[in-house]
Amino acid sequence: MATPKPQMTIADLNQFFDDAFDTPRGYEVVRIEQDRLRIRQSVETLMLRPGGTVSGPTLMALADAAAYALILAHIGPVALAVTSSLTISFLRKPQPVDVVADAEFLKLGRKLAVVDVRLRSDGMADPIAQAVVTYALPSTPPLGPLPDSA
Amino acid sequence: MATPKPQMTIADLNQFFDDAFDTPRGYEVVRIEQDRLRIRQSVETLMLRPGGTVSGPTLMALADAAAYALILAHIGPVALAVTSSLTISFLRKPQPVDVVADAEFLKLGRKLAVVDVRLRSDGMADPIAQAVVTYALPSTPPLGPLPDSA
Amino acid sequence: MATPKPQMTIADLNQFFDDAFDTPRGYEVVRIEQDRLRIRQSVETLMLRPGGTVSGPTLMALADAAAYALILAHIGPVALAVTSSLTISFLRKPQPVDVVADAEFLKLGRKLAVVDVRLRSDGMADPIAQAVVTYALPSTPPLGPLPDSA
Amino acid sequence: MATPKPQMTIADLNQFFDDAFDTPRGYEVVRIEQDRLRIRQSVETLMLRPGGTVSGPTLMALADAAAYALILAHIGPVALAVTSSLTISFLRKPQPVDVVADAEFLKLGRKLAVVDVRLRSDGMADPIAQAVVTYALPSTPPLGPLPDSA
Repeated sequence: MATPKPQMTIADLNQFFDDAFDTPRGYEVVRIEQDRLRIRQSVETLMLRPGGTVSGPTLMALADAAAYALILAHIGPVALAVTSSLTISFLRKPQPVDVVADAEFLKLGRKLAVVDVRLRSDGMADPIAQAVVTYALPSTPPLGPLPDSA
Repeated sequence: MATPKPQMTIADLNQFFDDAFDTPRGYEVVRIEQDRLRIRQSVETLMLRPGGTVSGPTLMALADAAAYALILAHIGPVALAVTSSLTISFLRKPQPVDVVADAEFLKLGRKLAVVDVRLRSDGMADPIAQAVVTYALPSTPPLGPLPDSA
Repeated sequence: MATPKPQMTIADLNQFFDDAFDTPRGYEVVRIEQDRLRIRQSVETLMLRPGGTVSGPTLMALADAAAYALILAHIGPVALAVTSSLTISFLRKPQPVDVVADAEFLKLGRKLAVVDVRLRSDGMADPIAQAVVTYALPSTPPLGPLPDSA
Repeated sequence: MATPKPQMTIADLNQFFDDAFDTPRGYEVVRIEQDRLRIRQSVETLMLRPGGTVSGPTLMALADAAAYALILAHIGPVALAVTSSLTISFLRKPQPVDVVADAEFLKLGRKLAVVDVRLRSDGMADPIAQAVVTYALPSTPPLGPLPDSA
């Protein structure tokens, strides 16, 4: 796609999330590429259910966060992007390990971004869940690259 | 629909959730009717975002919980029902007040239950979000009414 | 909701569809109310499958058409509204009779309209399918009421 | 995934669809691989809208057909698989050329199959639409490989 190159580094994004949210976020951005991004949530923060599985709401929150991080990485720290809709299919029982979420643009338009997210138990090939997340983008232009001091 | 009558009372259901989850759940079942159920999450437990709004993941978790509670209320405390898919549309900015979630069966089949959920800021007419939640039901028969001691 | 009153009559809308599409559309707008609209597709045009049932794609097309008609009825004949996403749950086997689709606004915003659609086999209480349809609205202002000659 | 190997050839599948439907289907299965399948609908059968674009309902029908063909290719000609839900995001304006739909399993379980479908205007890299299609599978075992005479 003719999407802009990523404008934020991994460190930029993790710092942005640290600053934006009061509560610990649980996940870390671990990879940024053109049109793609990966976040990881450690098993220690997953609040496992009895039986060692991961709750559906935890996976939904992670899918939403991965899509948001992908968008910010590419358009800059525009805090006003808001989730417009999210569809998630739960596919397999999560294992009691870290969860990795891979987000990829289906579209990055002027008004809407549509992101495919695959969630996997760390080290497994088959996804535990798949989500399509749509964000409404603010009509103001993106802020551009972060200043050096950010 | 030819769905069974509710098999659990409001007190039954809230007790079931208290027993099933270690962490405080935040919401209360406040109404059970044929094919419908309402839960409410108090503003104190909503972890408001800066600006007083409610996060998307909080609303997703609440929609999932309302669907789960509706199913349990009608088929009995079958803990093995699992979310199969969830689609949510975010419609309006939540207000800094309690959130009320109204769940209603679109279908209660043998294998799948499909539930429509409308979320509203308390006292408002227009929904802040709408969700369709699909649960896979266990193939074992429901447990029937709770014993008196439950 | 503070949506505008319907700006088109049933006759206006059916005429608009007659003019806009080369092929016969199969369905008729049969009711317009504030925030709601009903269309009906006759069993003769439903291209029944063997066994007398209605195909999934026919129901998807009907859900999309009902949402489109609802939007046009309220904002005027703005042909440029385009479907942004559609989620449909198939709930029950259709009967070999007319299908009735009831569309209702979840939201009519400036950029997006989100519509709930329930499809029923004529005369049945339980829906055969439920859809949520999102339309992107053109940024140009609506055309206003149709002139008398339209 | 540990899905079975495809059990039907391209010719098997196209013949099955010829036999199963009275009306010409418009699309051809053109590729079958492990967990993946491609169908193509020629521009001549697409019933282009004014302006040369392809209608949303045509794309929804094509996404549903691609998922169905993928399932049949892997479990054998079990005509009783039925669409349970479909979510489609419309991403870009289709071009007046053939449409190619690539279906891939997210999951092939005993009761449910979940399929990701990407639709592209022939020769373009970016998808015009993306769909997630869920099929309920019949509880009877698959028929096994087609006999030689099929």
